[in-house]
Amino acid sequence: MITLEMIHSAAANLEGQAQLTPLLTSDLANQALGGKLLVKAENLQRTGSFKFRGAYNKLACLSAEQRNRGVVSYSSGNHAQAVALAARLFNTAATIVMPSDAPAVKISSTRDLGATVVLYDRKSESREALGERVRAETGAVLVPPFDDWHVMAGQGTIGLEIVSQLKATPQRADALIAGASGGGLLAGISTVLREISPQTALHSAEPEGFDDLRRSLISRKRETNASNGRSICDALLSPSPGEKPFSILDGLAAPGYAVTDDEVRHAIHFAFRYFRIVLEPGGAAALAAVTSGKHDARDRVTVVVASGGNVDDALFREAIGTGIHQLP
Amino acid sequence: MITLEMIHSAAANLEGQAQLTPLLTSDLANQALGGKLLVKAENLQRTGSFKFRGAYNKLACLSAEQRNRGVVSYSSGNHAQAVALAARLFNTAATIVMPSDAPAVKISSTRDLGATVVLYDRKSESREALGERVRAETGAVLVPPFDDWHVMAGQGTIGLEIVSQLKATPQRADALIAGASGGGLLAGISTVLREISPQTALHSAEPEGFDDLRRSLISRKRETNASNGRSICDALLSPSPGEKPFSILDGLAAPGYAVTDDEVRHAIHFAFRYFRIVLEPGGAAALAAVTSGKHDARDRVTVVVASGGNVDDALFREAIGTGIHQLP
Repeated sequence: MITLEMIHSAAANLEGQAQLTPLLTSDLANQALGGKLLVKAENLQRTGSFKFRGAYNKLACLSAEQRNRGVVSYSSGNHAQAVALAARLFNTAATIVMPSDAPAVKISSTRDLGATVVLYDRKSESREALGERVRAETGAVLVPPFDDWHVMAGQGTIGLEIVSQLKATPQRADALIAGASGGGLLAGISTVLREISPQTALHSAEPEGFDDLRRSLISRKRETNASNGRSICDALLSPSPGEKPFSILDGLAAPGYAVTDDEVRHAIHFAFRYFRIVLEPGGAAALAAVTSGKHDARDRVTVVVASGGNVDDALFREAIGTGIHQLP
Repeated sequence: MITLEMIHSAAANLEGQAQLTPLLTSDLANQALGGKLLVKAENLQRTGSFKFRGAYNKLACLSAEQRNRGVVSYSSGNHAQAVALAARLFNTAATIVMPSDAPAVKISSTRDLGATVVLYDRKSESREALGERVRAETGAVLVPPFDDWHVMAGQGTIGLEIVSQLKATPQRADALIAGASGGGLLAGISTVLREISPQTALHSAEPEGFDDLRRSLISRKRETNASNGRSICDALLSPSPGEKPFSILDGLAAPGYAVTDDEVRHAIHFAFRYFRIVLEPGGAAALAAVTSGKHDARDRVTVVVASGGNVDDALFREAIGTGIHQLP
């Protein structure tokens, strides 16, 4: 399990390493939405996504002997960069299994951070099996992207920061929305909020066709996505919720949202205009639940986790293309 | 004059109103530059630029009787939005004189924040004279964009935050670079740093053809730009340094930098890629001094103030256009 104490301990591990990201507000966005929107800008985290928190905390929780054997992971690209940087900071080697169709910026950044990248075909190969092979061959320690208590405790530090930032104003959050792939981010944050801010409803946001968590929360068992889906949200394509994250979220999270690619592009444009931040598609899914109107933000305080900003130039240019999307 | 005490008092006025903006770092940017770069992301400030600090502090320092007469200002667009929001927060009226060729997003945002906008022709009319006319007709109080001690004290709160953020890591800054139009931002920050961090060299960054402050610091008198210049840095087109800011910076600031439009576009792209923030041209001028190599960042700690992020879609799309600029 994961406890509030584990998350406080993760925060201590991350002290001086992770960026304290701002909880942003926009007077004009609030005016357009008729409610209060707060954006936790984890695109500003080191390596450009929240993943650094979990990866660094996991490595900090290993023994020196374990860490020195090197680490291995699989990732669509954000956890990859996070593990690469964490390994560098702990002076050990990292091997990352990444899909060959990951955004170019994610692959090159992972390499530039010193990791060995092994590419695989998402349609025909299993990343878990490849990761396991590297682990067996090298003796390296696996750093899972979400199905791990220490990784989730790291992501949960976002919840601690949000609670403290809300208190400073002070205000209460009626709802919090976070993008979900394996569900580790939302599981970590929910562990904090259910204890400290139980009145806050916790919602997941997923791409249409990859709404396994949304459906799992309804059926109360881990559902799997059809394998023929497509989405621009490269970070949110996990086939089903992680076992450990789902054990936390089951019966706790409020109904999830599924958003379309067009709603995500619109959210990227909205974040560009009103918050002056760069979001990748997966990082904008939670915001898209608000800007699409699927989540009713009127007369309420809604916190959205903007989870990452590693996006290729061309996709971003398209998203903010003049005339494609009308902002409110 | 402006004292450290006035800046502490401004920080107290801004408590709970201004955003505490992060001091961002990027492991890959540092690797590319061979030094340590820290970006104070004032594009994340309310209304999208540092100007909110000075405008709000000025209104806070007026008497209730003065404030109730309404306020008037002239601005290329960022101070305009700042005064509009500050006036709204103090429940008073604002009239802003803006150039008709200001970015569309700046004009519409100022109106959306409730201000009355008066457009003028930058080539044939004087904004100071128009502002004076509004002041005379309405009895409103002038909130100058830079030539005012309380406005500069507000901008100086950035210096307090930087000092406290550097101390948390801890590290010392060898240099700080900020964009300059009238010079109020750099004057405010320098008032803090010369007392608390005297080893930090203070540099201005201006567009080529509008490097009046750079030349004034050399000649030791306020120089004026030729009137036929052009630059994409709409926020940095003031014809000469403000009298009060220059009285602070004269003999104190290190040599200034002048940057080209292409260097600024490249800096916008660099900030997009490595820091995942949206900068407008004027807000990227200080960063351009680093990414162009004009400021040597190798083996040093350089703080750059990213002063604003209100940019029209088309200009931003062009700046991050694939293939236009090679990143390091």
